[in-house]
Amino acid sequence: MSFGARLAQTLAEQGPLCVGIDPHAYLLAEWGLPDSAAGAERFGRLVVEAANGRAGLVKPQVAFFERFGAAGYTALERVLADARDAGLLVIADAKRGDVGTSADGYGQAWLAPGSPLEADAVTLSPYLGVGSLSGVLALAEQSGKGVFVLAATSNPEAALLQRAVLADGPRAGATVARAVFDEVTEHNRRAEGAGLGSAGVVLGATVHLPAYGIDVHADPPHPLTPVLAPGFGYQGADVRNLASIYGRLAPAVIVSESRSVLSAGPSGLAEAIANRATQAGAARVH
Amino acid sequence: MSFGARLAQTLAEQGPLCVGIDPHAYLLAEWGLPDSAAGAERFGRLVVEAANGRAGLVKPQVAFFERFGAAGYTALERVLADARDAGLLVIADAKRGDVGTSADGYGQAWLAPGSPLEADAVTLSPYLGVGSLSGVLALAEQSGKGVFVLAATSNPEAALLQRAVLADGPRAGATVARAVFDEVTEHNRRAEGAGLGSAGVVLGATVHLPAYGIDVHADPPHPLTPVLAPGFGYQGADVRNLASIYGRLAPAVIVSESRSVLSAGPSGLAEAIANRATQAGAARVH
Repeated sequence: MSFGARLAQTLAEQGPLCVGIDPHAYLLAEWGLPDSAAGAERFGRLVVEAANGRAGLVKPQVAFFERFGAAGYTALERVLADARDAGLLVIADAKRGDVGTSADGYGQAWLAPGSPLEADAVTLSPYLGVGSLSGVLALAEQSGKGVFVLAATSNPEAALLQRAVLADGPRAGATVARAVFDEVTEHNRRAEGAGLGSAGVVLGATVHLPAYGIDVHADPPHPLTPVLAPGFGYQGADVRNLASIYGRLAPAVIVSESRSVLSAGPSGLAEAIANRATQAGAARVH
Repeated sequence: MSFGARLAQTLAEQGPLCVGIDPHAYLLAEWGLPDSAAGAERFGRLVVEAANGRAGLVKPQVAFFERFGAAGYTALERVLADARDAGLLVIADAKRGDVGTSADGYGQAWLAPGSPLEADAVTLSPYLGVGSLSGVLALAEQSGKGVFVLAATSNPEAALLQRAVLADGPRAGATVARAVFDEVTEHNRRAEGAGLGSAGVVLGATVHLPAYGIDVHADPPHPLTPVLAPGFGYQGADVRNLASIYGRLAPAVIVSESRSVLSAGPSGLAEAIANRATQAGAARVH
């Protein structure tokens, strides 16, 4: 079963909420946990336990584990295993990118069946060109896994680069973000999935997409391109505006929230996830 | 002592060669090592041993360790410790990039003194904007560490994005790669180092830099921006052309070679490093 098919099922049955697993130092302190690999592991497993049955997806932020080195990765392996055992779809938020065999190494780490860091999907950064990620996309396709390539992100410092305009090539005149979106969409078309593709993009909910040349009201691609959408909740976008922000892409949107749920602390977490899942589910477009 | 000052000393005393530590599956096989974390560790420690006294810098490619999960990171920690004990300058080739506290997490992992993955410098990817990396640059400055931000890379799939033209902002009309170069250069100017700055860029040796709006014959920035230069050796650029490729940036160039030395195998490695170091040293511009 392809990642796109599994994602479609998760969105239909459990709604679009994806709960971030972000063991910041300050959140660990608020949760009464040590700022260590053991603290990050405990934090991650508590989030998985609370998300189980209340949301369909989780997204561990790899940076907050990597800061503890190998011990942090041991913690992350356990969190990933818990999450996959619980039937949650796991998006490893690693933002990896490199060329050739190095990019393939990252693909193997996060997407190869049986890898200790196996997730269902990984986020990728396209600064070296979407083409540099082709080995990872091929591995994803072969293994029933997914990728989310950064396109238009929700942080303001990103706008100038992501809105820069291609000077040559078949997409001359398109913005960088638009070209990334189109290349990912083309990959899905070649892969011939139905419904949802297995390669997605990151499009921030706080971003004015038309300013990136992305017309969300145009005829949507077939298969539809999954969209990982940060920016809701704490960062300011209102999930009730999901349909107006994403237009005809809205049925493929994953609503990623971290601080808005994690700040509830371990005792309030399950209720916060249930509430946010209800809101995101109500806003979902079918 | 700043990273820029340490780099200047290394370049002057040991020349510009930086030996890649790339435990590809196929190289492990060629070296008679298992394709495992233990194999990668042995590979890395053999490279460090051979580089010690023959080159000034090493660059582990993190992807080839990450594919083994936490065990790969344990291997990498040992390789990093060996390399730093040997007095080699270590550039962790991780190409990390994220926003806010997540980016800071990556900075802590690779640059915080005492971190299990502590290196002397780390490579960073600017798809989210150079501004998104400001916390990492600040940590580097405070800790005597360095960064190398991807600007114009040596892989052909990267050209369209990296040559895209900024449409607005203070650098409107510049290419993405040029804007990254200028932002890093400005950071060094604000940090007020002499000689070499502590924030560098990646500019591939196979790239025609004028096509990116980077005029290497113009007055160079003060302090000079360090350049990590892949593309020599196996990838096709000839180190004897270092001065013509990099012009007035040439004194700050680090010649990064991996396969051209690693393919010599464990028995020929020390000699291959010594030979490439001699060639790179002869091509160096003072």
